[in-house]
Amino acid sequence: MWAKSLRKALSRVTTPMVRRLSARIVDESYIEVKPSQSVAPALTFPGIWLRDNCRCPACFHDSSQSRRLDWDHFDTSVRPLTLHVDADKEQLQVRWSDNHESIYEMDWLRSHSFDGDSQSSYLNDFYRPRTRHWAGALFEEVARRFEFDQVMSEDSALQQWLHALAVYGVALLNGAPLDEGVVRRLAERVGFIRRTTYGEEFIVQAKPGAQNYAYLSLPLPLHTDLPYYEYKPSVNILHCVVQTKSRGGSNLLVDAYHIADRLREEYPSDFARLSRTPVDWNDIGSEDGSEFHNIWRAPVICLDDAGEYTRINHSVPQRDSHFNVPLKQVLPWYESYARFVKMAREDAHSFKTQPGDVLTFNNLRLLHGRTGYDDTENNSRYIVGAYLDWDIIYSRLRVLKKRLGSVHTVPPTVK
Amino acid sequence: MWAKSLRKALSRVTTPMVRRLSARIVDESYIEVKPSQSVAPALTFPGIWLRDNCRCPACFHDSSQSRRLDWDHFDTSVRPLTLHVDADKEQLQVRWSDNHESIYEMDWLRSHSFDGDSQSSYLNDFYRPRTRHWAGALFEEVARRFEFDQVMSEDSALQQWLHALAVYGVALLNGAPLDEGVVRRLAERVGFIRRTTYGEEFIVQAKPGAQNYAYLSLPLPLHTDLPYYEYKPSVNILHCVVQTKSRGGSNLLVDAYHIADRLREEYPSDFARLSRTPVDWNDIGSEDGSEFHNIWRAPVICLDDAGEYTRINHSVPQRDSHFNVPLKQVLPWYESYARFVKMAREDAHSFKTQPGDVLTFNNLRLLHGRTGYDDTENNSRYIVGAYLDWDIIYSRLRVLKKRLGSVHTVPPTVK
Repeated sequence: MWAKSLRKALSRVTTPMVRRLSARIVDESYIEVKPSQSVAPALTFPGIWLRDNCRCPACFHDSSQSRRLDWDHFDTSVRPLTLHVDADKEQLQVRWSDNHESIYEMDWLRSHSFDGDSQSSYLNDFYRPRTRHWAGALFEEVARRFEFDQVMSEDSALQQWLHALAVYGVALLNGAPLDEGVVRRLAERVGFIRRTTYGEEFIVQAKPGAQNYAYLSLPLPLHTDLPYYEYKPSVNILHCVVQTKSRGGSNLLVDAYHIADRLREEYPSDFARLSRTPVDWNDIGSEDGSEFHNIWRAPVICLDDAGEYTRINHSVPQRDSHFNVPLKQVLPWYESYARFVKMAREDAHSFKTQPGDVLTFNNLRLLHGRTGYDDTENNSRYIVGAYLDWDIIYSRLRVLKKRLGSVHTVPPTVK
Repeated sequence: MWAKSLRKALSRVTTPMVRRLSARIVDESYIEVKPSQSVAPALTFPGIWLRDNCRCPACFHDSSQSRRLDWDHFDTSVRPLTLHVDADKEQLQVRWSDNHESIYEMDWLRSHSFDGDSQSSYLNDFYRPRTRHWAGALFEEVARRFEFDQVMSEDSALQQWLHALAVYGVALLNGAPLDEGVVRRLAERVGFIRRTTYGEEFIVQAKPGAQNYAYLSLPLPLHTDLPYYEYKPSVNILHCVVQTKSRGGSNLLVDAYHIADRLREEYPSDFARLSRTPVDWNDIGSEDGSEFHNIWRAPVICLDDAGEYTRINHSVPQRDSHFNVPLKQVLPWYESYARFVKMAREDAHSFKTQPGDVLTFNNLRLLHGRTGYDDTENNSRYIVGAYLDWDIIYSRLRVLKKRLGSVHTVPPTVK
């Protein structure tokens, strides 16, 4: 949407009408740029911001795309003195009170507009695509499927997979080979694997005396992975190499942002408790001979300052026996938590991946689980997993978006 | 302190006086445990929390140290029916309304007390040691020095280094060999390297046409690394292999939590702006042939719900030209930011590491910089760096604390 409106804006500037630019200084501190006789609105920029973002070689280092302005001597009282518009070159020239001169391209100015709608478009498309939350019944509509080979070879397929993952929190790849290197190749197609206490790739299969609850053939109730990390791994990649032929071994998935939406609407006091009460999450054990004792304290529903979800924490096995809250908060919190657990369980969608399927989902948002199963001598369920971080995924999405333009999301029709 | 009070508590239970335990049910929902004829206060536990944390093999999986209680059928209306105290075994037995029976060791109960002071001790010692903020003039007092060989071979030296790093945000190791494997060996002594867009180890040396501003011999103003990551690397490890013989190449360090303390006290409106205004941080470039476009939006001073600092973001080169805030907020924000930058610069401590020194500091908290320098044909400044995450460091600290007890912090005497 941002790239699209940028292209639209760019196409406009080729018409002679728009070329008649004018600019003026407002209140000594702002610069207003107006394409005269055009329907396009005037753009207003703070002078200090323009000075701070001067693009000349003394102020901006081109090969590292970084500001090199000397902030140790930056004067915040700097003011624009005179303006000059070069209509043919589509440039604005500014002479500043610190004797510096700057030139700004109109394209650059348009793409940095302080207009609220432009900023919104930039943030909800280029920065991070806006998420769409879904009830379990909508799973088949929202869970897009992609061919593994196409994702590995075509940038547009790579972009569509990552975009779907960002928006819906889940996407599936089909037709992957059955070797153990699949998750690494896929992660490196995006960036690199996020390592954890359990290494880079991890194998999910039943192991006697396992140090982690996931490495048992027992049913694995809905949970998020590694809630005991402040820097929780973002996205799970689970490659099904061998699926159990027994009943069970099915995946369970639920969009916990949808459950949180419902709590916020239907049970606001439960929502308040679950988003304000810090819970101790932990993992104690050893891996490759090295002991660990991970703990992170955070609510079940984590919100940012704007009230948007940043992360869901939930795990029955990894919730610490330590619960460092005032005594009186404990009983009500359990009531609210039990409601969350029940609503999530009732909304969970169940399906069974087949060998060659790669299930990818947002570990900050979705709860996942597994029904119990039975291995036999000739059939041992075998899943290879790894994590990818959103920092790395969004970076890849932005690079692809600049090259290919935006992906347009079709919302599911059923509510 | 927590481990100490635990040891004290343990030593108390060996006296016969304390063995005469009593327990009672309060308001049907709480259990109060009292060592009779003892000065130790009664401990009160919520019934539902006790039931949730039953330690029997059906409810708790010992080898993974995880709760295995079936929360899909957990009844939050569960109540304690009868209690029995075994004074000799120091155990509390509870019969529950769901027909389950649980046994709790007194040691376990004491270490899980809901008493505010106990919780505080646990959180400020075992969970995460409480930080102490410092003015630049105190650098020599707070910056502890350790021998590299001792840290590599002795667990108590390892613990003291990591504890100092947690509390003061900086610590130095001396006498490291001059090979390029030092930072990896040190990181693996703790856990493992945190990988970024720039790889695992990185080399800081002057490179013509560098894609990153740090890879120039120019002065590097105070900054934090990778503010453009949501999951920002926690701790910098900078191993000085070759130091410049020219003037310059000095490190600059400042405790930005101290600067934030001062702003909060002296300039509350600047503090409010810097802690509430989201700033776009970015990094655009390519590494090993792979393009990236990293962006993260966050204030300069990041706070948690309790108003405690979680992270500082500051970098002149990596602050995006995009600034997605309402127009009217821009000018006041620049004024506040300029004050922060000036106060930080004036408080910065300057020192020059020597070959074999390893400087380690908290990248979420400290600003670091470097004065400009000149390489010659026979003398090229050469620093090897890597990052470690707090999740991993605190885990190592907890493992060491359980084995060795607590480290006691001596606060600097000068204020």
